[in-house]
Amino acid sequence: MIEFRSDTFTLPTSRMMEAIQTAALGDDVYGEDPTVKELEEKTALILGKEASILMPSGTMANLSSIMAHCVRGSKILVGDESDIYIYEAAGASVCGGIMYEKIPTMSDGTLRIQDLEETFPKDVDDPQFALPSLICIENSHNRMGGKVLPLSYLEELKAFSIKKKIPIHMDGARLFNAAISLGVAPREITKFADTVQICLSKGLSSPIGSMVAGSKEFINKVYRIRKMLGGGMRQAGIIAAPALIALDEYMDRLTVDHEHARMLVEGLASIPGVILEAENVDTNIVFFRVDASKLTTEIFIEEATKRGLNLAELGTNRIRMVTHSGINSTDIKKALKIIHSILAG
Amino acid sequence: MIEFRSDTFTLPTSRMMEAIQTAALGDDVYGEDPTVKELEEKTALILGKEASILMPSGTMANLSSIMAHCVRGSKILVGDESDIYIYEAAGASVCGGIMYEKIPTMSDGTLRIQDLEETFPKDVDDPQFALPSLICIENSHNRMGGKVLPLSYLEELKAFSIKKKIPIHMDGARLFNAAISLGVAPREITKFADTVQICLSKGLSSPIGSMVAGSKEFINKVYRIRKMLGGGMRQAGIIAAPALIALDEYMDRLTVDHEHARMLVEGLASIPGVILEAENVDTNIVFFRVDASKLTTEIFIEEATKRGLNLAELGTNRIRMVTHSGINSTDIKKALKIIHSILAG
Amino acid sequence: MIEFRSDTFTLPTSRMMEAIQTAALGDDVYGEDPTVKELEEKTALILGKEASILMPSGTMANLSSIMAHCVRGSKILVGDESDIYIYEAAGASVCGGIMYEKIPTMSDGTLRIQDLEETFPKDVDDPQFALPSLICIENSHNRMGGKVLPLSYLEELKAFSIKKKIPIHMDGARLFNAAISLGVAPREITKFADTVQICLSKGLSSPIGSMVAGSKEFINKVYRIRKMLGGGMRQAGIIAAPALIALDEYMDRLTVDHEHARMLVEGLASIPGVILEAENVDTNIVFFRVDASKLTTEIFIEEATKRGLNLAELGTNRIRMVTHSGINSTDIKKALKIIHSILAG
Amino acid sequence: MIEFRSDTFTLPTSRMMEAIQTAALGDDVYGEDPTVKELEEKTALILGKEASILMPSGTMANLSSIMAHCVRGSKILVGDESDIYIYEAAGASVCGGIMYEKIPTMSDGTLRIQDLEETFPKDVDDPQFALPSLICIENSHNRMGGKVLPLSYLEELKAFSIKKKIPIHMDGARLFNAAISLGVAPREITKFADTVQICLSKGLSSPIGSMVAGSKEFINKVYRIRKMLGGGMRQAGIIAAPALIALDEYMDRLTVDHEHARMLVEGLASIPGVILEAENVDTNIVFFRVDASKLTTEIFIEEATKRGLNLAELGTNRIRMVTHSGINSTDIKKALKIIHSILAG
Repeated sequence: MIEFRSDTFTLPTSRMMEAIQTAALGDDVYGEDPTVKELEEKTALILGKEASILMPSGTMANLSSIMAHCVRGSKILVGDESDIYIYEAAGASVCGGIMYEKIPTMSDGTLRIQDLEETFPKDVDDPQFALPSLICIENSHNRMGGKVLPLSYLEELKAFSIKKKIPIHMDGARLFNAAISLGVAPREITKFADTVQICLSKGLSSPIGSMVAGSKEFINKVYRIRKMLGGGMRQAGIIAAPALIALDEYMDRLTVDHEHARMLVEGLASIPGVILEAENVDTNIVFFRVDASKLTTEIFIEEATKRGLNLAELGTNRIRMVTHSGINSTDIKKALKIIHSILAG
Repeated sequence: MIEFRSDTFTLPTSRMMEAIQTAALGDDVYGEDPTVKELEEKTALILGKEASILMPSGTMANLSSIMAHCVRGSKILVGDESDIYIYEAAGASVCGGIMYEKIPTMSDGTLRIQDLEETFPKDVDDPQFALPSLICIENSHNRMGGKVLPLSYLEELKAFSIKKKIPIHMDGARLFNAAISLGVAPREITKFADTVQICLSKGLSSPIGSMVAGSKEFINKVYRIRKMLGGGMRQAGIIAAPALIALDEYMDRLTVDHEHARMLVEGLASIPGVILEAENVDTNIVFFRVDASKLTTEIFIEEATKRGLNLAELGTNRIRMVTHSGINSTDIKKALKIIHSILAG
Repeated sequence: MIEFRSDTFTLPTSRMMEAIQTAALGDDVYGEDPTVKELEEKTALILGKEASILMPSGTMANLSSIMAHCVRGSKILVGDESDIYIYEAAGASVCGGIMYEKIPTMSDGTLRIQDLEETFPKDVDDPQFALPSLICIENSHNRMGGKVLPLSYLEELKAFSIKKKIPIHMDGARLFNAAISLGVAPREITKFADTVQICLSKGLSSPIGSMVAGSKEFINKVYRIRKMLGGGMRQAGIIAAPALIALDEYMDRLTVDHEHARMLVEGLASIPGVILEAENVDTNIVFFRVDASKLTTEIFIEEATKRGLNLAELGTNRIRMVTHSGINSTDIKKALKIIHSILAG
Repeated sequence: MIEFRSDTFTLPTSRMMEAIQTAALGDDVYGEDPTVKELEEKTALILGKEASILMPSGTMANLSSIMAHCVRGSKILVGDESDIYIYEAAGASVCGGIMYEKIPTMSDGTLRIQDLEETFPKDVDDPQFALPSLICIENSHNRMGGKVLPLSYLEELKAFSIKKKIPIHMDGARLFNAAISLGVAPREITKFADTVQICLSKGLSSPIGSMVAGSKEFINKVYRIRKMLGGGMRQAGIIAAPALIALDEYMDRLTVDHEHARMLVEGLASIPGVILEAENVDTNIVFFRVDASKLTTEIFIEEATKRGLNLAELGTNRIRMVTHSGINSTDIKKALKIIHSILAG
């Protein structure tokens, strides 16, 4: 099977597996796993923050960050197409007593400043209103086709956040894809956010985990919340060791994934019956629809599976293809052939 | 001062004040206040439900209803222009661990079935998704200009709710206004909702309180939640006694308010510089804007206040005028004159 | 029926009912009810605090105070025999994400400093531990027989709270009973607590409500929480007006209640089969058991009811009798006769 | 350093490390990691339950179980000396709106049935009372010295739970130690509980993780909650692979640990200045105090550390020593010598 459903399917590289074997381990709940410490320091450095902390998942990375930022009864401003809003099971309301206020997501993944502005009540002392306590952005943006937020937008948003005295949390599950696309160091992006989470187990190919980065004070808060949620792990060095390798290798790795995505989108553009959502591709995610007069999305995906191609619907009738370390250029060609043959048949 | 800001400013009538004096009282926390019992029975009858319960406010009426319907981690589908979404301080998230999913409110106050439908995930077993657990509607609809939901819409919505196995809660803070506007008994409206809250202290002119109505089982749940939130009151008969009068008198009362609102809207239509949001008025609420080239909303309201007319901004640059028992036809005429003179000046 | 179950059954006096008739009313949700304002100012003055706020119940007064003091995930230190722990439906956990840590209640109603001390972890940075954020005390103490906390104890507790940087909330549902028993002004008691709630509808005989008092900053927080819980009420002057009278009259009122309680306990002491929990009585509450070899508590209470005497079991086999404005000295004598006759028969 | 602080310091065996290398991996968030599936099936079989699920920690295993069992506003009955009550950061209150009701823990780790019984209110319809929704027990019991709950007690508790219609959750972080001590299969213990959690990373020596087991319906609920809390992990096979080995090897492994603990306790018994909490030892945990007239606990532990022996205080002046795979009989002898020399000096 050629696996295009997600970059979360990436398997650890052999170098990563070796790193697990030789990792120095300790009980990280006691703060004594040296490999985890190394990963936390390295991540903080890369992201330009004072500190960082290991998490079992991106969901917990986002949830604990939101809980550390926001008091109960406040509201987070979050894109209606964001993973935090759609795929994280209302955790901030359940565990934090926090309201989600969804903001329209623009086609480039941004949230308009004006839309954010309008969520602030004129009279902040009026107890009827939940007050905004955090802006959440996603970069690159999954459901908007892997779009990368422009640095100029981030700068403008940062200025707004300072004016309004409200922090910014960046869901950077695919932050490194954004950095490569922009040709800048990750910290040139994350400097516009107060806190950030990155995912180790998507394009980075590490098996498990995410990192939250921010100020020392903030990470201390997150540390308490992680324990409460049950994210403290014992010999977590076996997760941290491959992640350290991933942080060394990601540049080459993701650059190739982006090339593959461009190959893919060019190929798809020439197949009759494929309706691309965007002609250009910023990172490693491609969205398209199939001509409904030819066949339904459901049948299309079934047919692809039969022929050895794994695809996923993400949003009604939207098909997402994600390139990653498990995909090479031959796979791209094969996939294009299969899609062509289904739509031709 | 002529008070047009809200029908919540209504004062109890002399008949209500007399009823307080003669009311039989008891400790309602022990279930022994006969006047409260009478009110709860009468309300249930009027609303066509098995049972009802007294609440200190509409906010608690809605909050406890939502908590009784919804488990933690589920989401309520609620209009983006509804009072529950905007004015109730995120209570369902704080106290219930429930997510608010806002749905676009149509200009007639309805939520489109298709928009509701799209909030249900295809795969209900996928744990990423918070599942819808309640539809909240508002009738009449405050921020949409006192609009009354059409019975045909309610019927359609009820069919949808049955198909999707999800209950409907009606925020009927101004339900009786809707009933009079439609010329039907209140129960002809509430039969399309599983549960309903009505407000005693708006147009009904009673000083304090709201009622929740629904099945016996549901009201038992609400009863437990009311205690936990702190809504159990002792000699609550002093609240129930005027409410009983209000339930007798509302028909005449609100009919007049609606006439006054029509007078008002007709008058406003002929004043240069007034931009009405709607030419017709369903109930007792009128929205308009003032021609920004003449003066700002803020100054307009200040000027009105100086001249003895109390107005409120509800939403940016939207002015709301509400008719109620404290307003007679002379007040309407005076108000129109004042508005005319400000905009003429 | 002679009603000894609780002082919550007290009915408003005729002076109170008159006050309702003549009260100036307004919409307190807009902060425009002058009678409520007067009550809030007067209460703050009496309790020696910067500000106070009206609540529909003592439960909400305690809940909103706890929520204003405590962040989610912290724990309140609360007596195992306190009303907050036993009778308030876990509200702090539900609405605040706060843990209750119960502390053994001594027979005089106090919580031992050493027991409080032991709830503080040695290592406050260890995320395993919920941290104490509030000490709750009750004065006078309902379930410990109306016991009044000694001022020397309160002084010691205050010193401890300052040392530990943790505030004290006093559940003073029957604070005025404590003040009269000690022969001091209420503020001489409440000065040892950061915040306090008092009940208007127990011995004070007002029909509805409680007050929270504390610093201005604290009351502002409580004000926001009250709105969210649904405790904001419209023409709340009808509640505030009788409360103002109650605050004028309580001294005479409660002094008599305490005399009656002493009469009662003296009478009970001489009835064979009555086992008093305490020979002396601090305030208006008396607890006793009946000799189980004679008859069960259940039958005893049933027999009393048949003969016109309403009694309540509060805790297994504990009978509570509460004196209040609905009880005069003749009622005491009748009650003693009835009890004597049941136990003799 | 000889590490006696906890069995959580255990490092994976070489067989475990090999298993990681060869494990079949997949994305477990999509339910496609075969090694995780195998572990979940095997665990369910061993524990005699329909299903089981992998968790990043015991804290999340307990938290998600409690949330799956209990509605908001209910209370869990939990030992005052249990890890759930003391070390899990109030998670059930924060994330579940659930109250902790602590029950005195007997010296053998049991909770008395009578104490449990008394937490049920006579009148379950009275909304003042939070209702019990779960009994939590711990087996073996950490803070009571690794005590194993007698099967006869569990049988009695099960009968009580059926009578009261309330489920039992067993925190079996060290369940296998209990099973070996009793000489029975684990399922002979877990049959008395509705749900159970076991820890993979304590005596079992696996690096990370815990398992929850119960009915299919229950595990489905836990699965949803795990996602929300952020416990869903991607290529979790790298955690599951060593755990599968641990489940094969634990019998021999823990039997040796128990022998070591007996050696330790016998040795300690003969050292002047050591005050053992119990002469006999059920499993792998030993508690003692040092004669305070000789030296303080703090200095004792410091001295031990200087001499290469890592000890921990668990509870005021209580020293805990835990045997595990990182301790051999030579270590025991060395440790005894060091302790002897400190107390002699």
